[in-house]
Amino acid sequence: MNYPNGRPFKGNKTQVGRTNTTQSSNINYGGRGMSLEKDIELSNKYYLDNEIAVIHKKPTPVQIVNVHYPMRSKAVINEAYFRTPSTTDYNGIYNGYYLDFEAKETKNKTSFPLSNMHKHQVKHMDACFNQNGVVFLLIRFKTLDEVYLLPYANFKYFWERYLNGIKKSITVEEIKKNGYYIPYQYQPRLNYINAVDKLILDESEDRV
Amino acid sequence: MNYPNGRPFKGNKTQVGRTNTTQSSNINYGGRGMSLEKDIELSNKYYLDNEIAVIHKKPTPVQIVNVHYPMRSKAVINEAYFRTPSTTDYNGIYNGYYLDFEAKETKNKTSFPLSNMHKHQVKHMDACFNQNGVVFLLIRFKTLDEVYLLPYANFKYFWERYLNGIKKSITVEEIKKNGYYIPYQYQPRLNYINAVDKLILDESEDRV
Repeated sequence: MNYPNGRPFKGNKTQVGRTNTTQSSNINYGGRGMSLEKDIELSNKYYLDNEIAVIHKKPTPVQIVNVHYPMRSKAVINEAYFRTPSTTDYNGIYNGYYLDFEAKETKNKTSFPLSNMHKHQVKHMDACFNQNGVVFLLIRFKTLDEVYLLPYANFKYFWERYLNGIKKSITVEEIKKNGYYIPYQYQPRLNYINAVDKLILDESEDRV
Repeated sequence: MNYPNGRPFKGNKTQVGRTNTTQSSNINYGGRGMSLEKDIELSNKYYLDNEIAVIHKKPTPVQIVNVHYPMRSKAVINEAYFRTPSTTDYNGIYNGYYLDFEAKETKNKTSFPLSNMHKHQVKHMDACFNQNGVVFLLIRFKTLDEVYLLPYANFKYFWERYLNGIKKSITVEEIKKNGYYIPYQYQPRLNYINAVDKLILDESEDRV
């Protein structure tokens, strides 16, 4: 399944909760590690089960045009279209903090191409940041199999640099300098809340 | 369009933003006022445009099974099914506060039947409340054309009363006593953030 832009449609694993997600993820990504989306899904389940945080992936926005009702079976949507999301993919609450983030993967070894980001997503992140939300990007470099949390406050500079036509991407070094490396661990595999704790601590110090 | 349970499918007006939503709302609801969903959509747009809050309705969760790619036209989803939402319909951020709520309408004149609520929604609201979120219900009595904000902390008592088989509904008087009446005004028509301010103030006093 592909989006109109040809980007593979990965489904809403968080919501669908299929058992073959790992397999399909490998097919979708082909990376050494599990897909970032799958890792986040497992982390969110771990956070929910252990009452650490309540974070959910939003369903893929779909415009439903026609629904069919076969006899003695559930409704079938037989005409619908993908819509452009008006927000990021993930939001929720962690210990009173509103969390809002987007997860992106890149095959690029040296930098994160900003063409991966959509203007409406950045606009939404900006609005949430202005409401004092904890807003960030989770970026996975597939070939390096490294994941970083890049706070929106720092991302903003690179985004404006991109809009000004100066640089189309953020180098790995820039992300290391301006973000938080998230090492893989046992459980959850991708414990991104640890990086969120650091971000909250650093931002509170900035605001003092 | 109807859900498997026969409940009319109202689409994601917040996301689709069709121009005929008012009309279709009248068809769907038949109440004197605009539908609660439509009112909330307009309020959320007002809050977003005026940088007061960032609240969005979540897309209807759909399990996509098959997508068709006609020549020179966008992808068509030609087999998909409605999934049970694992969260409430609305969440977002208001001045640093995580807001999470469900909106319900009832034709009942004297009480709100708790059969309108789904266990998984209440479970989600409870989890968000335990993370110190601002969690509540927006309840509209269609025939009275009155809307109330009922804090989750107060709703919880009535829900347990319902689960214990004592009472299947919350009376209007109980909602008036334990909630906040939201009068209609000029703009936004349903300014529920005013009630949220009262709720935040009262809860902060409770916690002192």
